[in-house]
Amino acid sequence: MPQKPPIGRDTRLCMSLSGRPGNAGSRLHNYLYDALGLDYIYKSFSTRDLPAAVAGIRALDIRGSAISMPFKEAVIPLIDALEPSALAIDSVNTIVNDDGHLTGYNTDYTACRQLIEASPADPAKPFLLRGSGGMAKAVVAALRDAGFTQGTIAARNPEAGPALAERYGFAWAAELPAQGAPLLVNVTPLGMEGPDAEALAFPEAMIAAAEVAFDVVAQPAQTPFIQAAIGAGKPVFSGAEVIVLQAVEQFALYTGVRPSAELVIEAARFAHGDATAARLAAATMKG
Amino acid sequence: MPQKPPIGRDTRLCMSLSGRPGNAGSRLHNYLYDALGLDYIYKSFSTRDLPAAVAGIRALDIRGSAISMPFKEAVIPLIDALEPSALAIDSVNTIVNDDGHLTGYNTDYTACRQLIEASPADPAKPFLLRGSGGMAKAVVAALRDAGFTQGTIAARNPEAGPALAERYGFAWAAELPAQGAPLLVNVTPLGMEGPDAEALAFPEAMIAAAEVAFDVVAQPAQTPFIQAAIGAGKPVFSGAEVIVLQAVEQFALYTGVRPSAELVIEAARFAHGDATAARLAAATMKG
Repeated sequence: MPQKPPIGRDTRLCMSLSGRPGNAGSRLHNYLYDALGLDYIYKSFSTRDLPAAVAGIRALDIRGSAISMPFKEAVIPLIDALEPSALAIDSVNTIVNDDGHLTGYNTDYTACRQLIEASPADPAKPFLLRGSGGMAKAVVAALRDAGFTQGTIAARNPEAGPALAERYGFAWAAELPAQGAPLLVNVTPLGMEGPDAEALAFPEAMIAAAEVAFDVVAQPAQTPFIQAAIGAGKPVFSGAEVIVLQAVEQFALYTGVRPSAELVIEAARFAHGDATAARLAAATMKG
Repeated sequence: MPQKPPIGRDTRLCMSLSGRPGNAGSRLHNYLYDALGLDYIYKSFSTRDLPAAVAGIRALDIRGSAISMPFKEAVIPLIDALEPSALAIDSVNTIVNDDGHLTGYNTDYTACRQLIEASPADPAKPFLLRGSGGMAKAVVAALRDAGFTQGTIAARNPEAGPALAERYGFAWAAELPAQGAPLLVNVTPLGMEGPDAEALAFPEAMIAAAEVAFDVVAQPAQTPFIQAAIGAGKPVFSGAEVIVLQAVEQFALYTGVRPSAELVIEAARFAHGDATAARLAAATMKG
């Protein structure tokens, strides 16, 4: 294993900025730096002053930063360029700093697209998606760009729902339709840790009739929807895989190095546990 | 040995800002964090935009920063308060960030004062000091505050020399006087790595007649002046010890933890090598 040098003047700092910083990003990136012997360190930050934090990224030549809630749109006027992944959804979750020039990316979009394209879901068939928030935009844009042309966005929100459907050329329904679809996608908090933890995002019969299940909820990795889909023998992927894959995209942007799938799974096990690592292996390491 | 946790959201970042960053600070601080199991990391930075870098320290809640050339005066209008060590010489080499409130210190002054007070130099007797730059101000202020009342500042610079002498109540001489003093202090580049490496800051006879030798040059730790003083059996201390002790002061300000003298010597050996560690032991671990 290559030896990582001690922290010094040549060490590049990468970071995250979020309202409620976690530790999984630090664990994943630092694990990969160590494993690959790269002279980088990664640390999560929060801030009460986004413009000054971005000025600091520039002034201290910090190599890159993940951008999480509530900064994904607010950061746009503070940077120099948007890459297509960020333009596709008007949302930045990653800044790359090239000698003071800050480019915004959205690796959630990229990761969703990778997962969709690697999945057995057939873009010639329709999808049914629940949700209309920021992450729904990433998933819907990724579905469109992965070749899907027929889909329904079920979302109660009478502004965000139709706007999302119209922007990407899909149908909108205020309530979940009786008719399901081969690909079911949940982008609501249904099944997430907390008050909605027991909620099943789609009816059992709809899951049984579907071909592929995608739940963007990451905590827990095993929502009731995912459990039901696994129980019905369907291929599944979830927010836990999105989190890992989007972080790997960030890693490649920051370092120029793309870790092997085996190493990513090892790092995911370290940062997120066995279940995520195993599903990541199933979702990404095919034949 | 206590276990340092992995880098995460609770890890405090400390840093340095300088025109030409080195690695010794990172080595020393990170060694001490590891040895004491403190959840801190330390990294050196440079910047082309000091106000934005300081804004970033605030916005990212970076715990503290060493401030080196050429930023020691320029940083003053950017921070919130000056502690007496910085006020004594109108120069900041350390910022401590308490939840967005930035206080400036000068630990070069503090370290010089510690070394002078720990040395056998008698403040009732005169000193002779060469130099009139920023570091000379720290040393002269420390000499005054350590109780010295008689001293001569020998400096060619016809503005800085007399101004320094007048401010702290000592005499000025444009040329090195024929008469030495019990304490000889060099704060010029004479003897420093580079074009002046062979230069002896004081004549051999003056060194032989002195009681204590202090050379602020740190690279090399063994200047011709220090070598001559050691050869003449005089107690010596140098810039290498100043660098370590001022960093330990910073460490204590950032973490609230004061490492033992033994651990400091161990860290100095790791960061600066055996010669500095040994002289540090001689200069600070008496009785």
